[in-house]
Amino acid sequence: MNELQNQKCTACRPDAPKATEEEIERYMKLLPGWELINEDGIDQIKKVFTFDDYLSAVDFTNKVAETAESEGHHPAILLEWGKSTITWWTHKIKGLHINDFIMASKTEHIYNSRG
Amino acid sequence: MNELQNQKCTACRPDAPKATEEEIERYMKLLPGWELINEDGIDQIKKVFTFDDYLSAVDFTNKVAETAESEGHHPAILLEWGKSTITWWTHKIKGLHINDFIMASKTEHIYNSRG
Repeated sequence: MNELQNQKCTACRPDAPKATEEEIERYMKLLPGWELINEDGIDQIKKVFTFDDYLSAVDFTNKVAETAESEGHHPAILLEWGKSTITWWTHKIKGLHINDFIMASKTEHIYNSRG
Repeated sequence: MNELQNQKCTACRPDAPKATEEEIERYMKLLPGWELINEDGIDQIKKVFTFDDYLSAVDFTNKVAETAESEGHHPAILLEWGKSTITWWTHKIKGLHINDFIMASKTEHIYNSRG
């Protein structure tokens, strides 16, 4: 169990603090395979999850979407044949909040728990 | 009823003919809001579908995915809060086949038939 697991997302306001460089570095170590990217000046974290067929990728996408809705924090999900690419960031602060790392950790759990 | 509606996708082989410029122009006129784009040298057609909430976008994504699986032709679907962006092209021919326009027409029908 690491510091991201089983945390809930906190409400995120426009003046909420972005994750610091040190925090990002620490959280990324807990999230193997996740990549730190910058799109249009916005830090984001992204991972490609692969599957043996289309419907498994669709099922994973739905589970991530269900968790997103229940936590009130929504990723970009790119669904293609055999893969689902998940990208997390916090729109309101145009960058990364601890919520994003918590959600990435939940995403990992969903992938690793699939039947 | 136009020439794209109610057609089924035909099996697409690597030597299947790409849609001609004239065909693309004719089909695009039947698909309002669809945009012809070129990604890494590959012609594709794309449209952003918008919704009032997340779950409606998820539901639409699932219906498009279900049709994709039943036709054996799969798009890229970018699911975000309140929108689902659908991009069609034919991997095997690295471009546009009539299948892609048929699927775009089916995608329109799914969007327009939602409850």
